[in-house]
Amino acid sequence: MNGAVLFSTTEENIERWISELRKRAPVLDLRIWPDVGAVEDIKYAIVARPPKGDLSRYPNLKAIFSMWAGVEDLLSDSTLPNVPVVRMVEPGLTNGIVTYVVHHVLGFHIHASSIQRKVWKHPFHTYMQVASDTSVGILGLGHLGQACAEALLPFGFKVAGYSQSRKQIEGVESYATEAELENFLSVSKVLVCLLPRTPSTDNILNEKTLNQLPTGACIINCGRGEAIKDEALLSAIRSGHIAKAVLDVFRTEPLPDDHPFWHEPAITVTPHCASKPDPRTGSAAILANIEKFEAGQPIKHIANQDSGY
Amino acid sequence: MNGAVLFSTTEENIERWISELRKRAPVLDLRIWPDVGAVEDIKYAIVARPPKGDLSRYPNLKAIFSMWAGVEDLLSDSTLPNVPVVRMVEPGLTNGIVTYVVHHVLGFHIHASSIQRKVWKHPFHTYMQVASDTSVGILGLGHLGQACAEALLPFGFKVAGYSQSRKQIEGVESYATEAELENFLSVSKVLVCLLPRTPSTDNILNEKTLNQLPTGACIINCGRGEAIKDEALLSAIRSGHIAKAVLDVFRTEPLPDDHPFWHEPAITVTPHCASKPDPRTGSAAILANIEKFEAGQPIKHIANQDSGY
Repeated sequence: MNGAVLFSTTEENIERWISELRKRAPVLDLRIWPDVGAVEDIKYAIVARPPKGDLSRYPNLKAIFSMWAGVEDLLSDSTLPNVPVVRMVEPGLTNGIVTYVVHHVLGFHIHASSIQRKVWKHPFHTYMQVASDTSVGILGLGHLGQACAEALLPFGFKVAGYSQSRKQIEGVESYATEAELENFLSVSKVLVCLLPRTPSTDNILNEKTLNQLPTGACIINCGRGEAIKDEALLSAIRSGHIAKAVLDVFRTEPLPDDHPFWHEPAITVTPHCASKPDPRTGSAAILANIEKFEAGQPIKHIANQDSGY
Repeated sequence: MNGAVLFSTTEENIERWISELRKRAPVLDLRIWPDVGAVEDIKYAIVARPPKGDLSRYPNLKAIFSMWAGVEDLLSDSTLPNVPVVRMVEPGLTNGIVTYVVHHVLGFHIHASSIQRKVWKHPFHTYMQVASDTSVGILGLGHLGQACAEALLPFGFKVAGYSQSRKQIEGVESYATEAELENFLSVSKVLVCLLPRTPSTDNILNEKTLNQLPTGACIINCGRGEAIKDEALLSAIRSGHIAKAVLDVFRTEPLPDDHPFWHEPAITVTPHCASKPDPRTGSAAILANIEKFEAGQPIKHIANQDSGY
């Protein structure tokens, strides 16, 4: 390959990424920001929170590979050059989301959080529910949503999904477009939000739509904090309409110390830790995409400036 | 069918069982203890903690169907007539165990319990582990153990199992007999105990064998409390060798208020709630077994007085 690959990030702890990239592509001319060398050499960029304006400096840049699944910050950067931006889709990142989501869906289903310490008290009265008694709705049925749906099905859960376009996934009831959102929500006893941040997903869970969930529903959000109107969720939790919320993403991160989410017993806050790309499989995925670009082959998961993801 | 079926239990809340049995077998002559009628009529008994000595009263009894998976109390009752005892194996009971086990395996894997409330602090340093980095050992690879193994495999966990006889389960490394116990334990970062109670499983997890687990291991016990030597587990937890224990079963139930298990932060106590048979599928399973008996067909899961399960 002619040209160099820039690794541009302000994140810390990138040593393992660099070693995994070098191990898999020893002849690659890899430049680590800020030691970029001649800007003309840079053909591809691997980025995670790159320094503001940095990506506009490379006249021969052909594509940008995000190390993250969410690319709304990149796409909204007006200094970004007009080249394809590829979202991170790799098995390690998917595995993290799937393990987090299934853990929390199962936890709600088995009443894990209502088992109080130091009290011998059954969490269910008389009869246990089996998984087929519980319906799970996946809000955002993209790559991660589909992986979660497919991980939940073997337990016996009834699984539905909502997305912009209708999906064909065996065993999953697919709802599409805003016209079907209410029907989708009404069958989502556990709602798993995996939506990307776009103008049409901001505040999608608000007073009106939260009310369309079944009474006693559980919400698990590992998409973006902006999908949920904070005050509407708090009201729904306090009224008992929503029984449980597990939140990994927030409008402001870290979640401020004085945010009421910290203090609601029915809300579990996790520090945006549901998943990260794995340097082993993540570096392999990026290198495979660079190879495809070089060979002029089609690349999946190119972000669309119009849809915002 | 000639003869009646006795439903003999001192348990409460059996109305739904009776209604499910009647719904599925409306012509069945079902007798509910203590209203048993003529003892000569009773051909089969469905039991859960039957009144002491009750089962010896029926001269024409052909078989006993336990509503529970564990039958050690029945088998050790010297007044029990010499007829087959059938353990409960039914999809609802299996589903409960599988959802409980997978929830807690995933929870340990994603560091769920180290995410403190009110603190924004990542549970893992720098790099996340994916499921294929974690090995799970199933101690007791019977019907429930196999179901748990098969539910864990799709996440990518490395799964091993230990049982009296070697098993052929795709993707599961099978260890058998006491000679292989140490090797099995050494690869069980998460150890799931599903052993029935027998003389050879009492105290199987003791000072010596707990020490054979990898440092930082997690133990999940939903077999029988007697499998674990309480003091040995407490020592291993306090020394840090065992990082986490999730216990659903105990030598004395309810677990006494002053038992040290309640007070160890690294021990999660649940009140023997991992699973119960489901009256819908459980009654169907018992009725199907009665039909097989009537037709002289072979029945699975007949308990063996020698092995104790």
